Amino acid sequence: MKRFAIVGHLAATAGTFSLNDLPGSAGRMDVLCRAVNSAFFLSHDLRRDVECYLVLCGKPGPEKTVLFVGSELRYLSPDERSAGALIKKALSLPCGDEFRESTPGVYVRRGDLARLLAEHDFAVLDEEGDDIRHAASLPTGYLLSDHHNFTEEEIALIAERQRHSVGPLSLHADHTITVLLNEMDRREHGWS
Amino acid sequence: MKRFAIVGHLAATAGTFSLNDLPGSAGRMDVLCRAVNSAFFLSHDLRRDVECYLVLCGKPGPEKTVLFVGSELRYLSPDERSAGALIKKALSLPCGDEFRESTPGVYVRRGDLARLLAEHDFAVLDEEGDDIRHAASLPTGYLLSDHHNFTEEEIALIAERQRHSVGPLSLHADHTITVLLNEMDRREHGWS
Repeated sequence: MKRFAIVGHLAATAGTFSLNDLPGSAGRMDVLCRAVNSAFFLSHDLRRDVECYLVLCGKPGPEKTVLFVGSELRYLSPDERSAGALIKKALSLPCGDEFRESTPGVYVRRGDLARLLAEHDFAVLDEEGDDIRHAASLPTGYLLSDHHNFTEEEIALIAERQRHSVGPLSLHADHTITVLLNEMDRREHGWS
Repeated sequence: MKRFAIVGHLAATAGTFSLNDLPGSAGRMDVLCRAVNSAFFLSHDLRRDVECYLVLCGKPGPEKTVLFVGSELRYLSPDERSAGALIKKALSLPCGDEFRESTPGVYVRRGDLARLLAEHDFAVLDEEGDDIRHAASLPTGYLLSDHHNFTEEEIALIAERQRHSVGPLSLHADHTITVLLNEMDRREHGWS
């Protein structure tokens, strides 16, 4: 199983935002929608061996985590609005401390990054990390930030984690996921 | 200069589509919007050395070509709707045989793939091509298709072009552009 977690620092935690304004009213939810697209889509297929966690930290709070499970996913199309609609539906459900399914393969719970990091091992993708192409083996889980840098509090949580970099330039989260999955694909298929 | 050209087989050629339905009313314009995002966006920066041609072949016709020029671009945000709005504005202009600017860095003209291929050299990205990581040098221009395969007529036009592949799996056009630019970034910055 491959796991990605993306922190949405301003991302809405209620399903009241407009699908016509994902960057504004939904707190840059467009960034998270593109990350979902990169995590799952192949040409005419989905990556069934991926799970993607969106840690939403915006208004009205408290934090929620939305989970997409590739092996169960339905109703996801590649456009941003499609992922946005599934997130909006999940956030519209009454939500407790345990994951609850909203549509096939999409789950929601209350919970922040600290809780998620206690449950799964994630390496951190940042420009200062080791080049993924030179890693003897690649971690299966990766944590990324949205358009904002990690906060001081988050940095303290991830201080001891492995750090990897996908290239010399600083990329958007979705592009980083795409490059990383390409490296994993190559290793799995014996492309050196 | 790096050049990308993406053929939108069903993509609208008039600016009458709804930004709320880029996949449907605009003929999978969402695919082209994501390709524009991948071609230009870095974290907090734009790739100024890229030009991106969208060859639109859908209704009502005839074919039009929309050109995004990185060194001149303004008003482009990463979300699909932003690129869609710039394309819609370009397609709403009266349009002749020569490129005409609609917003800074965005141009439109009547014209099909055959004309574009006569003007610039494009390698073809497809799964049967040579691995980009093993190419002694990389071409600067690349042609990609949207969610449909190239037509027989297009295949005849590109039969003699160089073919490159970015990995073992078949990817969406935007993901292919992202992987390719990562390889170019690495070569330019001495990352082996």
